[in-house]
Amino acid sequence: MAPLYLALLHFPVYDKNGQVVTTAVTNMDIHDIARAGRTYGVRRLYVVTPVHALRELAGRILAHWETGHGALYNRTRKDALEIVRLSEDLERTIVDVERESGAPPLLFVTSARTRQPTLTYVALRRMIDESERPLLLLFGTGWGLTEDVIGRADHRLPALRGRDTYNHLSVRAAAAIVLDRLCGAREEEEEART
Amino acid sequence: MAPLYLALLHFPVYDKNGQVVTTAVTNMDIHDIARAGRTYGVRRLYVVTPVHALRELAGRILAHWETGHGALYNRTRKDALEIVRLSEDLERTIVDVERESGAPPLLFVTSARTRQPTLTYVALRRMIDESERPLLLLFGTGWGLTEDVIGRADHRLPALRGRDTYNHLSVRAAAAIVLDRLCGAREEEEEART
Repeated sequence: MAPLYLALLHFPVYDKNGQVVTTAVTNMDIHDIARAGRTYGVRRLYVVTPVHALRELAGRILAHWETGHGALYNRTRKDALEIVRLSEDLERTIVDVERESGAPPLLFVTSARTRQPTLTYVALRRMIDESERPLLLLFGTGWGLTEDVIGRADHRLPALRGRDTYNHLSVRAAAAIVLDRLCGAREEEEEART
Repeated sequence: MAPLYLALLHFPVYDKNGQVVTTAVTNMDIHDIARAGRTYGVRRLYVVTPVHALRELAGRILAHWETGHGALYNRTRKDALEIVRLSEDLERTIVDVERESGAPPLLFVTSARTRQPTLTYVALRRMIDESERPLLLLFGTGWGLTEDVIGRADHRLPALRGRDTYNHLSVRAAAAIVLDRLCGAREEEEEART
């Protein structure tokens, strides 16, 4: 099985006016995506920000849950946050994944603005099952990853859509849905098909 | 197509020690689940709490985004929060769904503790497509819906699981995943199968 990595980018991302900005690291993003990551077998969640002070702050919050009072208070939170790493930029994140897994990762993006996807979720699900090469899924905060980052990815996954044209999911919700599509147990569906 | 309703219960739910408690209404739950609900075609999201002061507070926050400064600042947030209703308990929620849709809703629960599910996600997806009867999906905050509420439901959906035994998703993530399983566009999978 391919080792799966996630990166949550706080730069470079768009704001609602299409400007490239650095967003603030939010506690809820880290907790929610770490919990979903841990549930779906993600090896590491990289929280990526160029802002040193925000990495420091996030590091202190993680320490609270991993070794401080929080570790005793909520053991399942500790288990989830253990997969979190702080990183300065995408380059260093890629290097770290390669160092840990022994091979350069393939990069995947998904975005509400994805045009012309190059790979389906079903195909990536199969790739995870059959390949050994590390896979790094990129998610953007704010109003999403810049075209530059999207262009760097090896594959673009389809935008998540419901029955409507509205698609403004939080990045927390989008990451959870993508992980479920890729790694969710499907026994009940197997059952339903028989 | 069956009209789909969601209810987020803040009582009665368990805390981490298995005590029945009333949890606080959190802003992020409302925003995230409303955005996912709006994306996946949910007609109403009921935020259910017996605490009058918390319904008042939530109402003021909703008004900010629906008619206050927030409506101008972020139009997509306004569109999402328009589906939110505040409700005092499950009884009144059911009555409200019936009044709005013209029939009493079928009740569904999903929980990390679901034992012996009575319906698969695939089967409920089909039911949404083929039925006209309103469906009400119940989600619990805290450490989940009480056995009493679970026992009241017409159907129990399987617990969400990944590749691991760990399953401590946030209710925000769980709701998003369930909606995607039930109402997510699946064109790319159709394509992949051909």
